[in-house]
Amino acid sequence: MWISATCLLNFNIPVATPFIFMLRPRSGWQQWVGREQYLLAPSVPTVEFTDPFGNLCQRLVAPAGQFSVQTSFEVETAEFSDAAPGAPFVEVQQLPEDTLPFLLPSRYCESDRFSRLAQSIVAGCLPGYDQCSAIVDYVRGTTTYMPGAGQQIVSACEVNMMPQAVCRDMAHLGIACCRALSIPARMVVGYLENLQPMDLHAWFEAYVGGRWYTFDPTQDNLRGGRIAVAYGRDAADVAIYTQFGDPVDLLQMDVSVARLSGAQL
Amino acid sequence: MWISATCLLNFNIPVATPFIFMLRPRSGWQQWVGREQYLLAPSVPTVEFTDPFGNLCQRLVAPAGQFSVQTSFEVETAEFSDAAPGAPFVEVQQLPEDTLPFLLPSRYCESDRFSRLAQSIVAGCLPGYDQCSAIVDYVRGTTTYMPGAGQQIVSACEVNMMPQAVCRDMAHLGIACCRALSIPARMVVGYLENLQPMDLHAWFEAYVGGRWYTFDPTQDNLRGGRIAVAYGRDAADVAIYTQFGDPVDLLQMDVSVARLSGAQL
Amino acid sequence: MWISATCLLNFNIPVATPFIFMLRPRSGWQQWVGREQYLLAPSVPTVEFTDPFGNLCQRLVAPAGQFSVQTSFEVETAEFSDAAPGAPFVEVQQLPEDTLPFLLPSRYCESDRFSRLAQSIVAGCLPGYDQCSAIVDYVRGTTTYMPGAGQQIVSACEVNMMPQAVCRDMAHLGIACCRALSIPARMVVGYLENLQPMDLHAWFEAYVGGRWYTFDPTQDNLRGGRIAVAYGRDAADVAIYTQFGDPVDLLQMDVSVARLSGAQL
Amino acid sequence: MWISATCLLNFNIPVATPFIFMLRPRSGWQQWVGREQYLLAPSVPTVEFTDPFGNLCQRLVAPAGQFSVQTSFEVETAEFSDAAPGAPFVEVQQLPEDTLPFLLPSRYCESDRFSRLAQSIVAGCLPGYDQCSAIVDYVRGTTTYMPGAGQQIVSACEVNMMPQAVCRDMAHLGIACCRALSIPARMVVGYLENLQPMDLHAWFEAYVGGRWYTFDPTQDNLRGGRIAVAYGRDAADVAIYTQFGDPVDLLQMDVSVARLSGAQL
Repeated sequence: MWISATCLLNFNIPVATPFIFMLRPRSGWQQWVGREQYLLAPSVPTVEFTDPFGNLCQRLVAPAGQFSVQTSFEVETAEFSDAAPGAPFVEVQQLPEDTLPFLLPSRYCESDRFSRLAQSIVAGCLPGYDQCSAIVDYVRGTTTYMPGAGQQIVSACEVNMMPQAVCRDMAHLGIACCRALSIPARMVVGYLENLQPMDLHAWFEAYVGGRWYTFDPTQDNLRGGRIAVAYGRDAADVAIYTQFGDPVDLLQMDVSVARLSGAQL
Repeated sequence: MWISATCLLNFNIPVATPFIFMLRPRSGWQQWVGREQYLLAPSVPTVEFTDPFGNLCQRLVAPAGQFSVQTSFEVETAEFSDAAPGAPFVEVQQLPEDTLPFLLPSRYCESDRFSRLAQSIVAGCLPGYDQCSAIVDYVRGTTTYMPGAGQQIVSACEVNMMPQAVCRDMAHLGIACCRALSIPARMVVGYLENLQPMDLHAWFEAYVGGRWYTFDPTQDNLRGGRIAVAYGRDAADVAIYTQFGDPVDLLQMDVSVARLSGAQL
Repeated sequence: MWISATCLLNFNIPVATPFIFMLRPRSGWQQWVGREQYLLAPSVPTVEFTDPFGNLCQRLVAPAGQFSVQTSFEVETAEFSDAAPGAPFVEVQQLPEDTLPFLLPSRYCESDRFSRLAQSIVAGCLPGYDQCSAIVDYVRGTTTYMPGAGQQIVSACEVNMMPQAVCRDMAHLGIACCRALSIPARMVVGYLENLQPMDLHAWFEAYVGGRWYTFDPTQDNLRGGRIAVAYGRDAADVAIYTQFGDPVDLLQMDVSVARLSGAQL
Repeated sequence: MWISATCLLNFNIPVATPFIFMLRPRSGWQQWVGREQYLLAPSVPTVEFTDPFGNLCQRLVAPAGQFSVQTSFEVETAEFSDAAPGAPFVEVQQLPEDTLPFLLPSRYCESDRFSRLAQSIVAGCLPGYDQCSAIVDYVRGTTTYMPGAGQQIVSACEVNMMPQAVCRDMAHLGIACCRALSIPARMVVGYLENLQPMDLHAWFEAYVGGRWYTFDPTQDNLRGGRIAVAYGRDAADVAIYTQFGDPVDLLQMDVSVARLSGAQL
């Protein structure tokens, strides 16, 4: 199926300020970017580069004054995210090399401190996908998804002691538990159809049974209609924008996602 | 300035056939992809990956029957390509690492066989940009640009003995001579505004004075209005499509480029 | 000058256990690996790969029983680390792309929380190298270097409230403050001649004045005689070994560093 | 088993000359570099970098006068190269991304011109490993291995019309035929135990049955005892040294390979 997504950012910039944006999805596994638009107003010289995780990043200096970034995409994506109960754990020595960085502890996923908890959560599970499912159940059971509740990024350790959290931080907890079991897990930032309320979203993927699978502690059913914009070890790697120097004002951020009918294509 | 470009490919496919396309430009130096569209009909699962030179490649299996690829782009690009007479030669030991592969001989640029010729062409020139200009003059003076004259790719050695050639093969000769002087040179495939007759185009870039500069032996004046789609060592690296298995028919290939006025953006 | 370094690790392994080691230095800037030895006993199949930061990593499964890793190196390195008072701050938009990941907060360097502190530390300093020096003075002045005092890795925030710390954690604090000023900073793990007591060492590098410079809060004078083994954003990236599954015993870890005279080469 | 290899290069350099060497093997699949030595006399500042194919390259400026490069290695490697008759052809759409560059024509492997020949050579063979074997038989049957017979690198097309050739050029022919059948094939430069006469050696690998397999048209039996130093598309990618500027004299090149007994380790 095809979905469209837009993200509009509107800044007030006191003095010329360097930015790195991470707003352009790539075509990849079950994701085909058929149309895209990425407009800067005013238009400024911009260099695009690829970060160590393969994300396309846009570097520019925003001039003083009003500055807006308007992106929109039409993407073919899966209607349902694959589930694979029983998919087996992959021994570390069999993992593809590019999954290995996603085994290590990272800024917001202190996986080395989750050994005991992760072991207890997955007691009795078949190693692999079923462990990840148990972890998602745990995160969903102990933390209430509360969109907009978290301005400051919090880490897995912190989330684990909080009654409620945003999608990004719930993903941190899920990732930390997976890694504590030697399952590679990575953060995904992107769009999700019918998210309530609509916003950018974050979830995670775990590598079991020979491929990455989607897990989303914020949703009761594993829904599709996702567009992945960036992958990383945690929120530190996948900020949609990083701004250097004195703070600027984000005046407006509008996100929309819609399903396209055949007639619109 | 903004220009739009479209490329439509229409195939007749006897049996399901694997393809690699290289049709998606990246935003980069003096090139900002503001809008793009990349549609496959029928739509098929496609994986996008990055080749060793940083080009985005699309891999798919085209099903039997009619198959079309339709791409279009709106890109902000420079109105004039920078010229820099006098820009100095960069000593090999000072070259950035990512320029080094472009010093080596390659499939169609047998630079190791051009030492003597290159030396004679640039006799008396200041090392660097002026040498590249002299090489372009040589290519333009000894080979007549004859669009459509070359179906089979020919190498620098071969071009040098031919009275006429296409853009791609003229670039091969220019590249081989630059490399023979230890100047990194690379092939570019892309679009050029007002090309006569309109088609995909190829030119080359050489690294002097600390950056890459554009050279185009087919054009009397170094014009801008270019969109770079792929970079490589020569035509072997930057085929816009590579098809495996039994040959298929390319029924149609339409290319158009137009300048956009402010009102259209 | 040439120095030799050895590191011997001796494990007791209860059950076959996957490991990733990061013990092989690469030749690079002011570092030439002239001789090296990397022996495993017993010998086991090992795959070497490069992580996202360019470090050589060795992946293997250690069999049950005694397992030892013995590495030794003879490296030509600088007698003095370059200092460059006055070297200017590089604007973010001018930074090379491969320095950009070292601007972001990371597991143990919560740079986003150090804006205010970093600004106060560097008040009155010329932007760039002198700011880094002031940061090193701050770290050295508020934290006492206490080798062996830290088994658990602690982050910059934590170190900043501790009276004493190990080299690794002092580096975390220095890195976090640099990044808070938009100066790329990275962790280095390696060997240092005459370290007291001898052990593996950690320090950091900051990118100012167009290149990386060495900073070491544990040493009163910026000494040379260093061998860099791995680079990363913080200790999470550069563990000399990562072990998966149930804990194993590190029975022995011996490190030695010695200067070689000309006669020994 | 363990083997040792040495390579000594001795140059006379008229004026300071930039070089890129490709002389340091990496640990990898069935290859573990246990000891190595890489000495330059006189010692000069050297930067090591990784080329697009993952090879370690050493860049330096050799000063005027005598200049020598002395490398030696002790490597654990397989006693027999794996053979896998019947291993199946991998469909292009299933190939790992890093094998794809090895499907394209390259400087010395004009695979696009070998369709007909390759098809006739493999008539009746099971697609995959058996096709590669038939190609090796063809190369061995039509070309006599004549060490030292080829100073100038020749391409597959040229080799195919020559009665005798060196290892490097026989590999070119084998590679071109494999690629013409959509089988990824790559050049390997390295050492081979008991090569007669001893020299650096070249062979090729083809990707069938889910991994790379070794093929060597110069040897009647597929022997092990190999150390791979560099991988590439053909000889243009894997020169053990590339020298820029006016020619220099290679006064001496000594290669030795020996099997190590357990007692020597």
